[in-house]
Amino acid sequence: MTSTLRKNLLALAGCMLFAAGLSVAAPQKPVAPLVIQEQGSFAVGGTVVQSPGNYDSLNLSSGGQTLHGDHARVFYQVPVKARKLPLVMWHGFGQSTKTWESTPDGREGYQNIFLRRGFATYLLDQPRRASAGRSSVATTISATPDDQRWFETFRVGIWPNYFPGVQFSRSPEALDQYFRAMTPDTGPIDTNLTSNAVSALFGKIGAGILVTHSHSGGMGWLAAMKNPRIRAIVAYEPGSGFVFPEGEVPPVMPSAAGPLEGVGIPLAEFMKLTRIPIVIYYGDFILNEPVPNPGQDGWRVRLAMAKQWVDAINRHGGDAKLVLLPEIGIRGNTHFPFSDLNNLQIADLMSQFLAEKHLD
Amino acid sequence: MTSTLRKNLLALAGCMLFAAGLSVAAPQKPVAPLVIQEQGSFAVGGTVVQSPGNYDSLNLSSGGQTLHGDHARVFYQVPVKARKLPLVMWHGFGQSTKTWESTPDGREGYQNIFLRRGFATYLLDQPRRASAGRSSVATTISATPDDQRWFETFRVGIWPNYFPGVQFSRSPEALDQYFRAMTPDTGPIDTNLTSNAVSALFGKIGAGILVTHSHSGGMGWLAAMKNPRIRAIVAYEPGSGFVFPEGEVPPVMPSAAGPLEGVGIPLAEFMKLTRIPIVIYYGDFILNEPVPNPGQDGWRVRLAMAKQWVDAINRHGGDAKLVLLPEIGIRGNTHFPFSDLNNLQIADLMSQFLAEKHLD
Repeated sequence: MTSTLRKNLLALAGCMLFAAGLSVAAPQKPVAPLVIQEQGSFAVGGTVVQSPGNYDSLNLSSGGQTLHGDHARVFYQVPVKARKLPLVMWHGFGQSTKTWESTPDGREGYQNIFLRRGFATYLLDQPRRASAGRSSVATTISATPDDQRWFETFRVGIWPNYFPGVQFSRSPEALDQYFRAMTPDTGPIDTNLTSNAVSALFGKIGAGILVTHSHSGGMGWLAAMKNPRIRAIVAYEPGSGFVFPEGEVPPVMPSAAGPLEGVGIPLAEFMKLTRIPIVIYYGDFILNEPVPNPGQDGWRVRLAMAKQWVDAINRHGGDAKLVLLPEIGIRGNTHFPFSDLNNLQIADLMSQFLAEKHLD
Repeated sequence: MTSTLRKNLLALAGCMLFAAGLSVAAPQKPVAPLVIQEQGSFAVGGTVVQSPGNYDSLNLSSGGQTLHGDHARVFYQVPVKARKLPLVMWHGFGQSTKTWESTPDGREGYQNIFLRRGFATYLLDQPRRASAGRSSVATTISATPDDQRWFETFRVGIWPNYFPGVQFSRSPEALDQYFRAMTPDTGPIDTNLTSNAVSALFGKIGAGILVTHSHSGGMGWLAAMKNPRIRAIVAYEPGSGFVFPEGEVPPVMPSAAGPLEGVGIPLAEFMKLTRIPIVIYYGDFILNEPVPNPGQDGWRVRLAMAKQWVDAINRHGGDAKLVLLPEIGIRGNTHFPFSDLNNLQIADLMSQFLAEKHLD
């Protein structure tokens, strides 16, 4: 090979790598159709309350009526020749099934990605959120502008700047879609009630894998303790509700976002979490040392608590793993790795985990 | 053919008809997979408001922030070899995209039925409802039990009795699912804002057919006046917001559910509705004479107003038709014909309408 040819080939290879890098960020058009054997939706879990009195049809404000509320709502799709275990995807705070659907910049999210990989997907709105809005407890919803706070708490950047190298589209339209994914609670969040509903979901559909995000991380541990049909948990950036055996709760961790406390539970309950494989992923831009920005600093202590939690699980004979993405060379991820620009790479990690644990 | 053979064949035919009748009510298992070229979700329309002051990252309750709200949220699916015009399906009061998904008794709803018939489907949550919950106006959500009121208003029966022959499953589980489809407003309903969002949806996706239900009926006329890309409207049981040219508004119609008023608009606006084909369907159990039950009696005047509305459209050169299902021999339908036990038959009527108007 001549030196010139070699140089040209190297230049060509560089172009191809550059193009491959670009293609991660460019909107994908699905290459093949999704072949869905069955899809639909249903409510699961929930409560029924009744007002006093006898019902009178002719009285427009009659008592003696029921309220069916506090259920989760689930939209499911089962691909043809589905793998044995379905994926149940549970959004985080202020979010809905939208979390797993199209990304803010219009690429495919986990719903489509894992359907393409042969998994049935069950996307849920937790009780008192989005389409599962009927609540047995009244509430007030404020209209206080807080987009900038979430931009920082979700680690896209420090407003108005994006973090350098963040895996988030710079298009204004993507940011607009991102902000519009937020949807309020229609009643108080009740972790017992939400975890009951998710347990009931597995009661209905059978064994499966629970995928949680942020606030549902802690509620996911509760659901798994309630129902052994939860065969594994993939937790993206759990943010609260770390349960420890009583007597093993770590000290409170102060941060600019407020103090983070572990939750003590009976050892026998905790031990149920040692029977299933659990993997936890955190993204980038989480610092080791305190910083004044509350949005960013909160993740410092959540990550620290998660590390202690994984140690506790494994110390008691369990199988938990924490993956800090930058530590394995994957940089730029926000609080939403599964919808970030590199979400196919993030999905590959999850696929590898499921394969290693013989869950696919 | 011997007389015995003939009798046996007739008996067999009878059994087959009986079985066919049963199969309408029995949970269907989809016979063929849905082949989806593309699916996803997005927000459309909406407003941005900003709080006074400058944003300060270090102040947890800082002003100077935006709120992106008041958008609609859309989940769409495009089947392979889709027909030219998509169907946009807009729920009614207290409902969400759920309206068009699985029926209360677990059969396929309009989402799947029309995907199977080759239409792209766009299911929306209107602004300030369900997954489109972020509102620029605060609100309070009550937790007053009112299931029995909706049971009657949606014409399933007079609580606790079902209407004789009603096309609604008698299984307690179906009723439970039905009640759990309700989800509250997360801000005040603003008909201008909701119709703007739906107009913006057609602005984004191009020409299509709008399918409305109940409360979205009136808002659907507004959207169609705002966007000529709405090429036809199929309205199931519109309940309010009947627009008439100023000077042609019918007298207020009193009912046990309260008075129903038409809405006067400029003739030039009204004329826009005369340029597209419109079909309106109403179900069964709507009486000609006043009855004391408010749930049932409200539909008497809504139907009467709808008839006058269709007359007004056609008097001005338009193409509107009202189909009262019992008048064409289809009995037992509730306020939700598209999810009733005979919804495949109801869908056939819609398919025929679209075919007649060359919209498929």
